[in-house]
Amino acid sequence: MIHLSLIGIGTGNPEHVTLAAVRALNEADLILLPRKGEAKSDLVDLRRLLCRNLLEASSRARIVEFDLPRRDARADYLGAVDDWHGAIAAVWAELMATHLPQGGRVGMLIWGDPSLYDSSLRIAERLKSFMQSAAGREGEGELQVDLQVEIVPGITSLQVLTAEHRIPLNALAEPVQITTGRRLRERGWPSDAASVAVMLDSGGAFESLPPEGLYIWWGAYLGMDKQSLIHGWLVDVAAAILEQRAALRERHGWIMDAYLLRRV
Amino acid sequence: MIHLSLIGIGTGNPEHVTLAAVRALNEADLILLPRKGEAKSDLVDLRRLLCRNLLEASSRARIVEFDLPRRDARADYLGAVDDWHGAIAAVWAELMATHLPQGGRVGMLIWGDPSLYDSSLRIAERLKSFMQSAAGREGEGELQVDLQVEIVPGITSLQVLTAEHRIPLNALAEPVQITTGRRLRERGWPSDAASVAVMLDSGGAFESLPPEGLYIWWGAYLGMDKQSLIHGWLVDVAAAILEQRAALRERHGWIMDAYLLRRV
Repeated sequence: MIHLSLIGIGTGNPEHVTLAAVRALNEADLILLPRKGEAKSDLVDLRRLLCRNLLEASSRARIVEFDLPRRDARADYLGAVDDWHGAIAAVWAELMATHLPQGGRVGMLIWGDPSLYDSSLRIAERLKSFMQSAAGREGEGELQVDLQVEIVPGITSLQVLTAEHRIPLNALAEPVQITTGRRLRERGWPSDAASVAVMLDSGGAFESLPPEGLYIWWGAYLGMDKQSLIHGWLVDVAAAILEQRAALRERHGWIMDAYLLRRV
Repeated sequence: MIHLSLIGIGTGNPEHVTLAAVRALNEADLILLPRKGEAKSDLVDLRRLLCRNLLEASSRARIVEFDLPRRDARADYLGAVDDWHGAIAAVWAELMATHLPQGGRVGMLIWGDPSLYDSSLRIAERLKSFMQSAAGREGEGELQVDLQVEIVPGITSLQVLTAEHRIPLNALAEPVQITTGRRLRERGWPSDAASVAVMLDSGGAFESLPPEGLYIWWGAYLGMDKQSLIHGWLVDVAAAILEQRAALRERHGWIMDAYLLRRV
C-alpha cells in the first residue's frame, strides 16, 4: 500500500506552511523532491529548507531528489501536458518501487495548493495505472494495488498577493474569476466578473485588454525575499510592470508572477 | 500606534493554521474574539481552542471576547452590510481604546482567509475613520492616528472542499469562477467558466440551474469533526444534498457549506 500525501507548502515564505503540512512531512517514509533545472533552483531550495527546518529527529523520512521530465513545447498544448503527466507518473512509480518496495508513506511538497493550477493530482491518477500495469507484469494474478491519496491544502500565490497588497480578492458580494494568462489573451475579459485573478501568465496578457477603468495589483516571487509588488491603474502601470518583470527575470533567471484586475 | 493582524485560521481543522498565524497570535498584546450568538458557538470554540493550544507561556496577550453586532435583515443588502461594518468598526475602536490606550498589537482570528468573502479588511478601513474622529474629539490639534494592518493568509473552505474530495479546483488549464449563492440565483451559470465554486449560499442555489451535464462536489462544516461531503451528478444528488443540509442544520443549529460545480 502506498499512501501519497500531496502537501501544499505555500509559495516561498517558509512560515506559510500549516501544522498539518508539518505533520504530514514528519509522517512520511519517503519525500520526493523534484528538480526543475538550474534556473528555478530557488523552488527546490525552499523545499530543501522546509525539510531541514521542519523534519524532527524522530522522522524516518528518506529524502530523494529527482529530475522532473521536461514538457514538450509543441503547439498541441493539452496533448503535450498529457504526455508530460504520463512521463512524470512513470518517474514517480519507479522511485516508489525502488525506495518503498514494501509500500509506505510518500510525501510530495507541492508549491502553493495541490488544487489550483497544479498537476500533481492528475499525475497521481496516472500513477495508479502505472502501478497496476507493473503489478500485472509481475504476474501475481490478482492486481493488488492500493494507492491512497491525501491532500494537505496550502497557501496559494493569489492569497499571498492579496495579503501583501492588503486587499480582498472579491469586490463586496461580487464574484471573482481565476484564469490563466493564455485564456485571458484568447477570450478577453470574462463576463459576469468584476475581478479577475490571473496566474500562469508568460508575460503581459493584460496588454490584450482595453485598460480603461481597470486597476491592477501585481506581484512576483510572492512570499519570497525577492518579492516585488506594483499596483495602480492599468493604464498607468502596465509598462512599469512589464519592465520590472523583464529586469527581474534577467536578474534571477526565472520569474513567477500573478495579478488581480478589478473594474473599479 | 495600533498594529492590527488579521489572521486567517482556516475553517475548523486546528491543524490548518500556518506557522505565520501561530507567530502573529503569539506576538499580539490583545486578541479580540467575536461571539456570534449561541447558534454558531462552534466558531467561537475553535478560536478559543486555537488560543489555548497555540499561545506560548511567553505570550502577553490579553484575550477579550465581544458580541458581534447583528446585521440588519432589510432588503437593501449592500446598505445593510455597510451599516453593519460601521457598527463593528465602532466596537473594535472602543475595545482597542479600552484595552490598549497606549497602542500595541491586536490580533483578530479570521475564519478562512481574510481576503475571500470576509468583511474584516473593509471594517479595518472603517476603523481608521473612527480612530481619526476619536483623536479629533480629544482636541489634540494634530491627528496622530497610525493604524498598520497586516494580513496572514489562511486556508479557505474551498481549499478544504477540494482537498477532502481529492479534486482540483480548476479543470485542466481552464478558469474557475468563485461566486455566491445569491449571485448564482440572480444570474445563472457564468459564461466563460467550466467550473463554478459557490460560497455563502443560504441553501440550494444550484436548484436554479438546469442540472444536465453538471457534476457537484458539496461539503458542509469543512475541516470540522462534523464535516459532511456529497458528490455526484447534480441531477442525481441535488435532493440528497438539500435533505442532508436541512437535517444537519436542524441537528447543529447552524450550517456553513460550499460546493464546486463543473460542466463535464
